[in-house]
Amino acid sequence: MSISMSSASLPVFKVMLGNLKHFLEKAQAFAQARKCDPAALTQYRLAPDMLPFTRQVLIACDAARLGVSRISGVETPKFEDTETTFDELKARIDKTLSWLASVPPDKLDGTEDKEVTFPVGRDATRTMKAEAYLKHWVLPNFYFHVTTAYAILRHNGVDLGKADYLSGAR
Amino acid sequence: MSISMSSASLPVFKVMLGNLKHFLEKAQAFAQARKCDPAALTQYRLAPDMLPFTRQVLIACDAARLGVSRISGVETPKFEDTETTFDELKARIDKTLSWLASVPPDKLDGTEDKEVTFPVGRDATRTMKAEAYLKHWVLPNFYFHVTTAYAILRHNGVDLGKADYLSGAR
Repeated sequence: MSISMSSASLPVFKVMLGNLKHFLEKAQAFAQARKCDPAALTQYRLAPDMLPFTRQVLIACDAARLGVSRISGVETPKFEDTETTFDELKARIDKTLSWLASVPPDKLDGTEDKEVTFPVGRDATRTMKAEAYLKHWVLPNFYFHVTTAYAILRHNGVDLGKADYLSGAR
Repeated sequence: MSISMSSASLPVFKVMLGNLKHFLEKAQAFAQARKCDPAALTQYRLAPDMLPFTRQVLIACDAARLGVSRISGVETPKFEDTETTFDELKARIDKTLSWLASVPPDKLDGTEDKEVTFPVGRDATRTMKAEAYLKHWVLPNFYFHVTTAYAILRHNGVDLGKADYLSGAR
């Protein structure tokens, strides 16, 4: 009768990364139907000093993966962030989902009071207890990048709605 | 050593609604400095069929308030959604924060398996257990509207960054 660290993280990331992949499918279909350069979407930024769509997707993936790795202590490989196309971004989501599925939930459970140190910006680190880190850092950051990816596509006319955001292709 | 329903909801909403209010402060200062009509920001939409900034703020407030009300069983007044100015939107956030602060955490704790029925669209309802409702409906919806409000302001040149999103004025 209480929420475990694994249930507050793994299923949330699984559902929302699946939904993010669904946005990519719709964006790819949009670019094909309009015969436009997919890079017009993948490189789009909502402001000149915001990150482009590709990076929103990569950071959403890594917010989940690196957050779970730091909390659980399960090591995760370094990914090189070379993805540029919709297919490559979808593959990155799949790799992320596979890695998340490989993490034993019991490595996350019971970590609430564990101290987690993580990088903030280029030269600094911050330390938070794992429960606070998940609720006040990893999850808001993850949702920020998923929603910003959605907003970039919507702003460019891709046919998405709240149901796609909450429920993906289901 | 596990996450309670109250701790997974109340402090998250408190922090992020405070940060949302901080976005409004910055947007208001931006409009004053540029001598532009505040409505250019408050009525802005990222797509013609997306909701304007004002509604993103109101829905973020209500995602938190109505979610907590449905889970806890604590009644909440109906608000009329008449806010149009930055000052009115900030007051709506304050009213929401005051109401959330009045909810006894023990009304939320232990509700994980309680069935919650909530409206979906105009004519339908959906029922989920409270833990799933919080993690897979209320929180993603809440973050969606906070982030979209942020994205609208950023797209229009308001000086905001990730630190404002995660930490507000702190």
